[in-house]
Formats: sequence, C-alpha cells, structure tokens
Amino acid sequence: MIGVVAKLTIQADKESEFEQVGKDLMAKVKANEPGCLTYQLYKSKKDANVYIFMEQYASEEAFKAHGQSDYFKAAGPAIGACLAGAPEIQYFDIVE
Amino acid sequence: MIGVVAKLTIQADKESEFEQVGKDLMAKVKANEPGCLTYQLYKSKKDANVYIFMEQYASEEAFKAHGQSDYFKAAGPAIGACLAGAPEIQYFDIVE
Repeated sequence: MIGVVAKLTIQADKESEFEQVGKDLMAKVKANEPGCLTYQLYKSKKDANVYIFMEQYASEEAFKAHGQSDYFKAAGPAIGACLAGAPEIQYFDIVE
Repeated sequence: MIGVVAKLTIQADKESEFEQVGKDLMAKVKANEPGCLTYQLYKSKKDANVYIFMEQYASEEAFKAHGQSDYFKAAGPAIGACLAGAPEIQYFDIVE
C-alpha cells in the first residue's frame, strides 16, 4: 500500500475555486478507481490557505493508474491556476 | 471529519523498535475506536528515518477519545524514546 500527502498552498482569493476543483476530482477518483482507498481533500486548521490531499493506494499499479487518468491530468492546470507556490508531495510505503 | 498527519523522525538504530510500537498502537486503535476511520503508519520513500501516522476521525469527539485513551498515553514515552527530533503534527478539517 502506498500513501501520499500532497500539500498545496492556495492563493487567498482562489480558495472557493480550488475547493470545487478538488471536490470534482474526488468524485471522479471515487467513481473510477477501486484501487484508490482514500482520496480526501483537507484544509489546515492552522493555515487558512493550506490544503492537503490525503491519499492511500492499494498498489503501485493503482497509484500509477491514478496519475495517468484523463481527469487527473485535466485537473492539473485548474489546480495550478490556484496555487500560491510549488506543491509539496510526499510518498510513503505502508508499515504493517 | 478531522484529518491528522503526524510526522516523526526516528533515530537510525530505533526504526525496528518504533515500528513495533506503531503496529501495537494501530491494532489497539482499530480494536477500540469505531470513530477513528484511518490510523495508518507510513514510512517515507525518500527519507529512511521519517514516518507519518495518517489519521482520519469521524468527529471531534472521536479525535478527543483517541488522545485520552490509556494505550495512546502509554505509547507516548515509548515513541518518545525513539524520536530524533520534535514531532510535527498537522490538523485538518475535511473539505466535502
């Protein structure tokens, strides 16, 4: 199992736009990716403009399939237009 | 729903000891906390000594119950003995 935490800092006036893109993306992942066990957008309690996607994948294949999906690729520019800085993406292996 | 990402940097010779404490803690959370929807230890793919607990709680009450449990309190010193630095704990609200 693979874990991902993707931290995104969003421009102050783009929060609503970004959250809508995130919600659409979550819906598409849930509808299309049985190997994606968690794909949840969260907003920091401390820093108003900081968000994470918390993600868990059943396998390396499931993780790759996510990155290659049309809807993920399409969300890239829409999210990019809302960013205030470079995303910080961390990848993890499960401990079990 | 509340999300938590707790980042822990572990001493190089304490990884095995820490992972065992983490596994025991995960088992106890799963057995006792229906309001804790995710409680998973992950190891960074990039930094060998960096771990996270990826956590999701159904409610503020479930999150508080976790922190007040005897097994969580007991795990504190055992984890603390393995740390190479201060934990970095981030708290989030769900976007849905």
